[in-house]
Amino acid sequence: MTERITSASNPRVKRLTALGRKAKLRREERVFIIEGERLYTDTPRKYLKEIYMTEEFLNGKHGGSEPDNCTIVTPEIMRKISDTDTPQGVLCVAKMPAYRREDLMGQTPLLLLLENIQDPGNLGTMIRTAEAAGVTGVMMSRDTVDLFNPKTVRATMSAIFRMPFLYTDDLVGEIGRLRKEGIAVYAAHLRASRPYDEADCRKPCAFLIGNEGNGLTDDAADAADGRVHIPMLGSIESLNAAMAAGILMFEAARQRRKN
Amino acid sequence: MTERITSASNPRVKRLTALGRKAKLRREERVFIIEGERLYTDTPRKYLKEIYMTEEFLNGKHGGSEPDNCTIVTPEIMRKISDTDTPQGVLCVAKMPAYRREDLMGQTPLLLLLENIQDPGNLGTMIRTAEAAGVTGVMMSRDTVDLFNPKTVRATMSAIFRMPFLYTDDLVGEIGRLRKEGIAVYAAHLRASRPYDEADCRKPCAFLIGNEGNGLTDDAADAADGRVHIPMLGSIESLNAAMAAGILMFEAARQRRKN
Repeated sequence: MTERITSASNPRVKRLTALGRKAKLRREERVFIIEGERLYTDTPRKYLKEIYMTEEFLNGKHGGSEPDNCTIVTPEIMRKISDTDTPQGVLCVAKMPAYRREDLMGQTPLLLLLENIQDPGNLGTMIRTAEAAGVTGVMMSRDTVDLFNPKTVRATMSAIFRMPFLYTDDLVGEIGRLRKEGIAVYAAHLRASRPYDEADCRKPCAFLIGNEGNGLTDDAADAADGRVHIPMLGSIESLNAAMAAGILMFEAARQRRKN
Repeated sequence: MTERITSASNPRVKRLTALGRKAKLRREERVFIIEGERLYTDTPRKYLKEIYMTEEFLNGKHGGSEPDNCTIVTPEIMRKISDTDTPQGVLCVAKMPAYRREDLMGQTPLLLLLENIQDPGNLGTMIRTAEAAGVTGVMMSRDTVDLFNPKTVRATMSAIFRMPFLYTDDLVGEIGRLRKEGIAVYAAHLRASRPYDEADCRKPCAFLIGNEGNGLTDDAADAADGRVHIPMLGSIESLNAAMAAGILMFEAARQRRKN
């Protein structure tokens, strides 16, 4: 028989709320929260450990057939455990995908290296865009915002289950290691003389993107093969970080299509 | 002597709150709210009709010298009139810039045509990115979200004061009119055979972008010269609308630099 949670004081409610809010707890349990009909439908079943639905979602959108591991919750509890203002009636605990370093390389490496990205929406948009551009993996400095933050997860549009990623404690060291492996590392930098479209992206390469407010640290920028910039007109100081990353990644995709 | 508002029941507090929330009121008064230190600093003085600061902002960030039209408010009132959770201590009522149709054309027109964009952040990011890409003007269908929504305004990073724009009741008619004027209109469409980078953007042209969830209406897409798509890898169904627009606009910028 399907389990039901009807009391907000049920300890599982507290745990689900904490999983949405605490990166440390997510890391310890190696699980995270996904929510909404779209993500629920698009997520490979093997990742779904626990499923929570309202009666209304189960009978309406879901046609009444209960999946395995399903727990029915009241709309009040769904609102409590959800990260959104208007929950869609389905929320799951999902296993974190895990990758080895070599999983990020694909056939011809095209990497995104992120230093201290802080906006969850930006990070999620980068992951979504990266998949569409054919990026083979994403490497993040440890101080980058948690990839499994509910806002980030939503913005990835389920690409979070398909884009190989790693957090690293030593991004500068990784840049050197990648270069030794024959991967050209281009640092996106406002003060660079080389326009981004003059970088050869058909060969193995990586784009290095810095923090939204402060850009790259000098250590990281200096460790790269070179700096590239996106020429800008008007009086805008910089592009949104996800936008800049997207323009670079799709320039690489464009060059690789011509090959 | 500088005016002060210390009571939340002051009728001006109510008006300022309403200006942040009601597009209709903004349109009637032809003013809107800007807030935050950065926008305050970057906005040309001629647009600033009323300035509201906390004492702390005035004495700290602003060095104690009061600008004209400045009213001092308490931190409580600033929180009430602000659209953000952590207001920076400065908020202004600004005049809406107004443009004629010909102001959007620049030397070689590069237009962004938006149909029913609904996310304020997306619209703001598009305006910011458009300025950097050298877009000469933005034309929006009447059902597009209000450009002067506080979230949109913040996302433009002050490009709202520099990017010529128009709302139109007849976007489909405008597409026809632009084509008669020799401007090629490319509709961004998921079902298009032509990759976006094969469109010639060195000549006068426009990109037509549709609603986040539903894309372009058939009427609008059919009115264009042709459809272009951004080739995508992986399992992502579509890019974020602002991201797609940015990739198209910067392809145009790239082509125009080569000329």
